[in-house]
Amino acid sequence: MASQLAQKGVRKRTAVICATDESTQQSVAMAIQQGWMEAVMIGCTDQVKQSQPLMACSQHLSFIEAANDQEAAEKAVAMVKEGTVDIIMKGLISTDVVIRAILDKEKGILPAGNVLTHVTAASIPDYHKLLFFTDAAVIPYPTQEQRFMQIKYITRLCHQFGITQPKVALIHCSEKVNAKHFPFTAGYASLIEQAKAGAFGPCIVDGPLDLKVSCNLHSMQVKHIDSPIQGSADALVFPDIEAGNLFYKTITLFAHGETACMLQGTQCPVVLPSRGDDVMSKFNSLALACLHC
Amino acid sequence: MASQLAQKGVRKRTAVICATDESTQQSVAMAIQQGWMEAVMIGCTDQVKQSQPLMACSQHLSFIEAANDQEAAEKAVAMVKEGTVDIIMKGLISTDVVIRAILDKEKGILPAGNVLTHVTAASIPDYHKLLFFTDAAVIPYPTQEQRFMQIKYITRLCHQFGITQPKVALIHCSEKVNAKHFPFTAGYASLIEQAKAGAFGPCIVDGPLDLKVSCNLHSMQVKHIDSPIQGSADALVFPDIEAGNLFYKTITLFAHGETACMLQGTQCPVVLPSRGDDVMSKFNSLALACLHC
Repeated sequence: MASQLAQKGVRKRTAVICATDESTQQSVAMAIQQGWMEAVMIGCTDQVKQSQPLMACSQHLSFIEAANDQEAAEKAVAMVKEGTVDIIMKGLISTDVVIRAILDKEKGILPAGNVLTHVTAASIPDYHKLLFFTDAAVIPYPTQEQRFMQIKYITRLCHQFGITQPKVALIHCSEKVNAKHFPFTAGYASLIEQAKAGAFGPCIVDGPLDLKVSCNLHSMQVKHIDSPIQGSADALVFPDIEAGNLFYKTITLFAHGETACMLQGTQCPVVLPSRGDDVMSKFNSLALACLHC
Repeated sequence: MASQLAQKGVRKRTAVICATDESTQQSVAMAIQQGWMEAVMIGCTDQVKQSQPLMACSQHLSFIEAANDQEAAEKAVAMVKEGTVDIIMKGLISTDVVIRAILDKEKGILPAGNVLTHVTAASIPDYHKLLFFTDAAVIPYPTQEQRFMQIKYITRLCHQFGITQPKVALIHCSEKVNAKHFPFTAGYASLIEQAKAGAFGPCIVDGPLDLKVSCNLHSMQVKHIDSPIQGSADALVFPDIEAGNLFYKTITLFAHGETACMLQGTQCPVVLPSRGDDVMSKFNSLALACLHC
């Protein structure tokens, strides 16, 4: 992703809220040094100005004071509305504070009709291509309408990455529709129909499928399943946040996965790392957000 | 596990239902050849008798005819009640048929007060010890009572494996109790109290914790969480089947995990592989069941 950005020769502008932690500072400095980002550091400016990694690239930095975390988040959101920044990134500040500023009905940046959700792009050594998935962090148990939007956003993201007809798997622990115990599986059929009718542009949507059938042709054949995903999914839509979050954490902890994440539905990409994310994950997320906007 | 069994010098008796698929036949033959199992092959006997791997160990095999799958499952269950077998294993037959025979109120093998659930023992190259978890396959969304029994079974299994004070993590996507969106997290507190009061024998139960905090000390420290699990869980109790099943499939597909699984709550261990499981997984499950009974 970063190399694609370097070729484009554009510097995207990122508002970074309360970047008092070292991994945020390092990831921002790396993005600036690669030539595709400049940053407005909002809040905790005294502390941020002393950051060694950031001092090395100060010509692409500016600073805005804020009385507290809430004001810092609100200032970042206001800059998006004014068009003076392209991206928001969260540093060491409560996620709730940022989300509240984003969702504010008057001053926020979630356009009417949009759904706030979360996407991840993952590079897993044992998978043959980039794997996109949603939602590891925002919507607990998506409704049918929210899931429709999740498919819409993730398909659009795949298109942006040059995947002309992304294969999108609707995940479940089994391949059987079970309206009694898993009502959402009954909703998958109409999402597949909507996909066929063109609601998401060129793509192939199928489910319910489990992870192995979605991502491994042999598993599909052993189970005698016939899915157009053909064990080669580009994107996974998880039934709920427990599944999505667990997948995110399992691939990073046990499968050497590298990830990039951002919010979707907002007027601009929002990078909202969790405290456990490392520098590379934050850097990758900045690259994803810069590519997306 | 297999080496522990070989040392014990006991042959456990397994009823294998409809073993018409090669991976079931091979796993049974391997267990017999290692000296710790003998098998009663129930149903589809003409086909099973022609199996090359099984022919090589026919002195430890017997055969019982059955008119159909249902009768085969019922005969296996009846043999458990009579005490003539120690374990049940499912071959190429619908899981539902086996579960129905197990749950039959008169002839079944689920004692009153028990809960039918599923445990997995996993060896993951990037984790420093065996990791037990529940439930990847049976209970969709456990109630508080069912979760109590899941903790009971998995703690007992850890004790059997020589872990004197197993660390059991109650998994959630976050470390915060959230009664509104995730009611089960509110129930975790009383399970922790019950554990402290000795309901499960010697063990440490804590949660809600996410996977990384449960299995990685550094992640725990970065998030400023103070848990007695100390990033070194022996067992994970997942919030629902979507999470448990996904963890199972992610570690086997992307993290080179090896697994062994069985049902819990039944009068004897029941090995219920899914069609996508390979020979080693079935063999490991037989070893787990033989150790457990």
